[in-house]
Amino acid sequence: MPINRRWVLARRPQGEPSRDDFRLERVEISGDAPQGSVLVRNRYLSLDPYMRLRMNEGRSYVPPYRIGETLGGQSIGEVIASGDPDFAPGDVVTGSGGWQDYALLPARTVRRMPQQGNLAAIAMPTWLGVLGMPGFTAWIGLSLVGTPRAGETVVVGAATGPVGSMVGQLARLTGARTVAIAGGAQKCALARNHFGFDAAIDHRADDFPQKLAQACPNGIDLYFENIGGPVLAAVLPLFNDFARIPVCGLIAHYNETIGSGEAQAPGMTAAALMREVLVRRLSLRGFIVSDHQAEHARFMEEVAPQVASGVIKGLEDVIAGLEQAPEALAGLLRGDNRGKVVVAIDDT
Amino acid sequence: MPINRRWVLARRPQGEPSRDDFRLERVEISGDAPQGSVLVRNRYLSLDPYMRLRMNEGRSYVPPYRIGETLGGQSIGEVIASGDPDFAPGDVVTGSGGWQDYALLPARTVRRMPQQGNLAAIAMPTWLGVLGMPGFTAWIGLSLVGTPRAGETVVVGAATGPVGSMVGQLARLTGARTVAIAGGAQKCALARNHFGFDAAIDHRADDFPQKLAQACPNGIDLYFENIGGPVLAAVLPLFNDFARIPVCGLIAHYNETIGSGEAQAPGMTAAALMREVLVRRLSLRGFIVSDHQAEHARFMEEVAPQVASGVIKGLEDVIAGLEQAPEALAGLLRGDNRGKVVVAIDDT
Repeated sequence: MPINRRWVLARRPQGEPSRDDFRLERVEISGDAPQGSVLVRNRYLSLDPYMRLRMNEGRSYVPPYRIGETLGGQSIGEVIASGDPDFAPGDVVTGSGGWQDYALLPARTVRRMPQQGNLAAIAMPTWLGVLGMPGFTAWIGLSLVGTPRAGETVVVGAATGPVGSMVGQLARLTGARTVAIAGGAQKCALARNHFGFDAAIDHRADDFPQKLAQACPNGIDLYFENIGGPVLAAVLPLFNDFARIPVCGLIAHYNETIGSGEAQAPGMTAAALMREVLVRRLSLRGFIVSDHQAEHARFMEEVAPQVASGVIKGLEDVIAGLEQAPEALAGLLRGDNRGKVVVAIDDT
Repeated sequence: MPINRRWVLARRPQGEPSRDDFRLERVEISGDAPQGSVLVRNRYLSLDPYMRLRMNEGRSYVPPYRIGETLGGQSIGEVIASGDPDFAPGDVVTGSGGWQDYALLPARTVRRMPQQGNLAAIAMPTWLGVLGMPGFTAWIGLSLVGTPRAGETVVVGAATGPVGSMVGQLARLTGARTVAIAGGAQKCALARNHFGFDAAIDHRADDFPQKLAQACPNGIDLYFENIGGPVLAAVLPLFNDFARIPVCGLIAHYNETIGSGEAQAPGMTAAALMREVLVRRLSLRGFIVSDHQAEHARFMEEVAPQVASGVIKGLEDVIAGLEQAPEALAGLLRGDNRGKVVVAIDDT
């Protein structure tokens, strides 16, 4: 009987998550897959900022993790037992395997990875980054507010992460001018040199708002919001009339006690934001990628070949060993990572 | 040579506008209309909250009034001299006549009032209310975010004003449940009995947020924002997933020093607002009616017959005499009015 290691939520974090907020359990599992399900040996696990949000209590778009619950997340692995005629042991699949070695998943919720053709050559971690939930998130967010037009200025935060880098690359392919916001000189260089942004601004610099304004001489037409806090405050005065703002995430606030507004820039009241919405006729639209699964096949059809051919690039920061997952998530929230954070589960 | 009385901006108000912020000038005018223009004797002047916003300095969607400039606004009057073949003396027209007895207007900017048929029976002040800019504003705002669907809950503030009452009536015609927010018991009764709202809540009551929640047992699907401040704070926790919010105005903030957020409810940070946008997948869309003139004919075609037949009701608070305009505007911002504020210019 295999032993399953799994990370569960031990308690709700206060601020940055610490090792003691998690507990690693070892439990025996049966090794069988009941009818309609598949048992998957996880190989790669995606770590994403929304996971920190699920560790908090309170109303959100997905239920919070319960205390003692195994943390969830997209994974890639091999089927080792199947209770479904569409899957057989050895199949490589992706699904919501979570922070553990083995996952028993409903067969209808997993998807087989490409086994042949150009797509089979794409590395597994990339399927969790620009071709995983984060890349799909970028693609959906842009489609909801109107694909950028040639000559428009598109700004995105966390620009070397898998969502931000995908937003920048998709926008650039439409002929837009793309401006990255990232933390530190190294990430700014990466944004320009690896992902092809036209400009990259370090949000940690004292003169960040001025530098951002200089990088957007024609204002901002589309801001892909995944940060909030001081970044939103710097972006707000730069909007052109009719600018569009897909609201994808607010990572600056995820370590806060909900509603405390600790990471809020001074003067950033709801009234100040609403005033710009009115005066500049802004469109803001919050979205959650899981509402848009019906469009996933179209995303894959359009984007996967561009990743295979190198037109769209990924970048993954692969962390060795499931044991490292809690610290890797904390690092991701601090911005320590370089690209998409993926845990290679086996490599202890 | 006729004498034109005109109200000009004497200085920028601090807070509520006072009599000394305005100056009444008397100037001789020529009585002629150069080619392409019409000289109009104003009879009715529309007073609207946006005028207070234009008295402030600073970036907005229309340029601020200059010191010494005659205040603008929609009016109805008679052509007394015409330099355009399409207009003749005696024609009754509407245009941007402003706070004065006589206006020289480009002929292409004025529109003749209906002279015959059902529409000719509609009272002049109504053409400045539900059939004027405010009514068109309500209609455009709803069209931009999707007309309410049967069974949805629609909430609107300043609900006995010409915008709010039109929003409620248009929404009710689609089968939505309509909830009015208004100031005081009398206006709440008016909202229910005259305008047909399903419920009306007094925002001045201590338990306003609780009462609003009780009036929206199925949450809020569409909130037409024309208030801001504490009303937005009370509405925010009640949104259903995918709720839509046309952002039309922020009257609670118009008497503030821009950006001071004096009327801001406690805890209403931009972050708190953005969190709901994300979690509830809200769509906010700021708009200005003047961007949508191309749709004006369609509005008239659809709505004017419904006003003529009494299906859609107006309500006007007619103030006698141009001299009263400054105090009437201050009263409008305090919510003293009952319905659409129109100044009858002659009746001193």
